[in-house]
Amino acid sequence: MSGSFEPTERTLFRRRRDRGSYDEDLINRILDASAIGHVGYTVDGLPVVTPVAYWRSGDRLFWHTSSASRMCEARDGGLPVCITVSQLDGFVLGRAGMSHSLLYRSAMIFGRASLIDEPREKQRAMSIFIDRFFPGRSREIRPPDEAELGKITVLSMAIEEASAKIRDGGVADSDRDCQLSYWAGVIPVRTVVGEIIPDPNLPAGTPIPDNLGSYVENASLSDVLRALGSNQA
Amino acid sequence: MSGSFEPTERTLFRRRRDRGSYDEDLINRILDASAIGHVGYTVDGLPVVTPVAYWRSGDRLFWHTSSASRMCEARDGGLPVCITVSQLDGFVLGRAGMSHSLLYRSAMIFGRASLIDEPREKQRAMSIFIDRFFPGRSREIRPPDEAELGKITVLSMAIEEASAKIRDGGVADSDRDCQLSYWAGVIPVRTVVGEIIPDPNLPAGTPIPDNLGSYVENASLSDVLRALGSNQA
Repeated sequence: MSGSFEPTERTLFRRRRDRGSYDEDLINRILDASAIGHVGYTVDGLPVVTPVAYWRSGDRLFWHTSSASRMCEARDGGLPVCITVSQLDGFVLGRAGMSHSLLYRSAMIFGRASLIDEPREKQRAMSIFIDRFFPGRSREIRPPDEAELGKITVLSMAIEEASAKIRDGGVADSDRDCQLSYWAGVIPVRTVVGEIIPDPNLPAGTPIPDNLGSYVENASLSDVLRALGSNQA
Repeated sequence: MSGSFEPTERTLFRRRRDRGSYDEDLINRILDASAIGHVGYTVDGLPVVTPVAYWRSGDRLFWHTSSASRMCEARDGGLPVCITVSQLDGFVLGRAGMSHSLLYRSAMIFGRASLIDEPREKQRAMSIFIDRFFPGRSREIRPPDEAELGKITVLSMAIEEASAKIRDGGVADSDRDCQLSYWAGVIPVRTVVGEIIPDPNLPAGTPIPDNLGSYVENASLSDVLRALGSNQA
């Protein structure tokens, strides 16, 4: 059963409500379709936005960052953050200046982030991260030793407030503008998987593991990641 | 002549200095290769990150947002913001847990944003926006009327502090890890242009305008946008 997030002061749509949603399934689908998120936090009251590798597990988000990041300074009750995940899907070119826009899907998540400190918990989070993108791979690599675990920083937070915004479809010109003789249309954009490049240090003929089978050349990365994410959830 | 930004308290690389840069040309190349940026600002002291359509003109950034956004509340001396632009280029799978990472290019920009209020200035900014992506198109569409201009919100700021971070290349396993029999390699990812979709309301046979000629199917969007950006600069 899918739920819905309550609109809050921060997530209330003030305009274009038709493009906004609080639906949990939809928000999770957007989160599961990307690998880079943008984490906003404050340092001395001023905003900083850092790109991070993130992943979702149930109603929690996790991400990696540099252990030297000021994101890692401990704060009572957790660090207030906003993580936003966006995917560009294209350009809309209308007959009027006003009807030009981007096609996109985005999710905006608010919560309070905490560091995962305990080494075994950190290692578990890291295995989940690797397996989320490459199922079962955490058992097919050398696990981190204690010194390495000390260099990894993982943050985690419950999704407290969330909303999604989507602009899809095509040109939205008025009937009157449609009479104008200007060209209008959509330029779609998609993020696709390239051809896998084995490390040159591998013995010749080493096969690509089966658990990378989803990463088919020219497949939509969003589709691949979303399918892997829902297998795991 | 290209310059370099001074490292500041906020942009100083505390780790992995080999992946960081303050080079102005490199930062501009990253900015010019994307269309969506993530703007961080604070509301009541808490961070908010909003995806925006942005563009660069010289040493200034511009972006659109909803006029209902709390980003638009006037603040003396401008709204302190951090705009981060990132492009995912792939996944790195090493033989060890620690040698898994993302390939990416990102730029982090700090400044103080102001609203563009004056209608003619707003219209000029909007024309630059359209022409930046579709050269000359602002003269081939219906310009916005006064009521429409009232609904557009454009913010602008000088780039005050800036840094770039790039992870490229391949697997970085130690010599010792390279002896392990696990598979390692890179899964490249790229954002590409799709086939242009003319609006169904166009008269049959209407040709696609020449100024969309860069948007060739399967072309790298980063390459297309960067070339269009440098033509214009």
